[in-house]
Amino acid sequence: MAKVKPLAITHVGIAVADLEKAIIDYSALFDFDKIERMEVGGEGVKAAMLSIGTSELELLCPTKENGAIAKFIRERGEGIHHVAIRVPDVVDAMEKAKEIGMRVLDEKPRSGARSAKAAFVHPKSFHGVLLEFYDR
Amino acid sequence: MAKVKPLAITHVGIAVADLEKAIIDYSALFDFDKIERMEVGGEGVKAAMLSIGTSELELLCPTKENGAIAKFIRERGEGIHHVAIRVPDVVDAMEKAKEIGMRVLDEKPRSGARSAKAAFVHPKSFHGVLLEFYDR
Repeated sequence: MAKVKPLAITHVGIAVADLEKAIIDYSALFDFDKIERMEVGGEGVKAAMLSIGTSELELLCPTKENGAIAKFIRERGEGIHHVAIRVPDVVDAMEKAKEIGMRVLDEKPRSGARSAKAAFVHPKSFHGVLLEFYDR
Repeated sequence: MAKVKPLAITHVGIAVADLEKAIIDYSALFDFDKIERMEVGGEGVKAAMLSIGTSELELLCPTKENGAIAKFIRERGEGIHHVAIRVPDVVDAMEKAKEIGMRVLDEKPRSGARSAKAAFVHPKSFHGVLLEFYDR
């Protein structure tokens, strides 16, 4: 099948231990047009989207101790967690990734920020980068 | 002084051990409009910019063993190294960051990819994220 057309870097996900403190610290430097708080469905995560032009920083904060973000912070500390790339179709992107031997972490698209369709590719398949296909 | 207006996420920097292999692997999945190779001035780094809409993935590969990217890969493995945000003026952004107590890694703007003005903020000042102010 055809390669995936990457349309935009929609957001960069950043794992933080304290969401409100991170928002305050980031906002002390940057004058964000918009800051939107949200729950990310069923992931044990609360998030804040900080707009930067047509992209966003997505601050991700654990709400339970056994979630992926909590584990990330325990093991590596706060920091960049993933990069999200808008694609024409998440399912097609997942299929293409699998076709070329990449490890896709989702069986079917999950509900990402703002209930967009999303799916993740394992960092081992993308030179250490946790890649999110994002379609909204 | 006024806060810094963040204009765009211009690129996400990714440390890779083998530039050509990373380009091949990323290009197996994504149909990039443009791939541009370049040296990053004096940093012991060769780079490739892979266009994604108006943003880019910046693959960074060490050309000498004692550089920052070589050290990053030795300590953490390949992966996301920094996020670059376009600002109206790099010097103003550096001054604002210092005013609020952030640790800026450059005394004056350095030459970033494509000879843009660039300056970095230490990850400890930005919740684990190496932040690049970028102005081109």
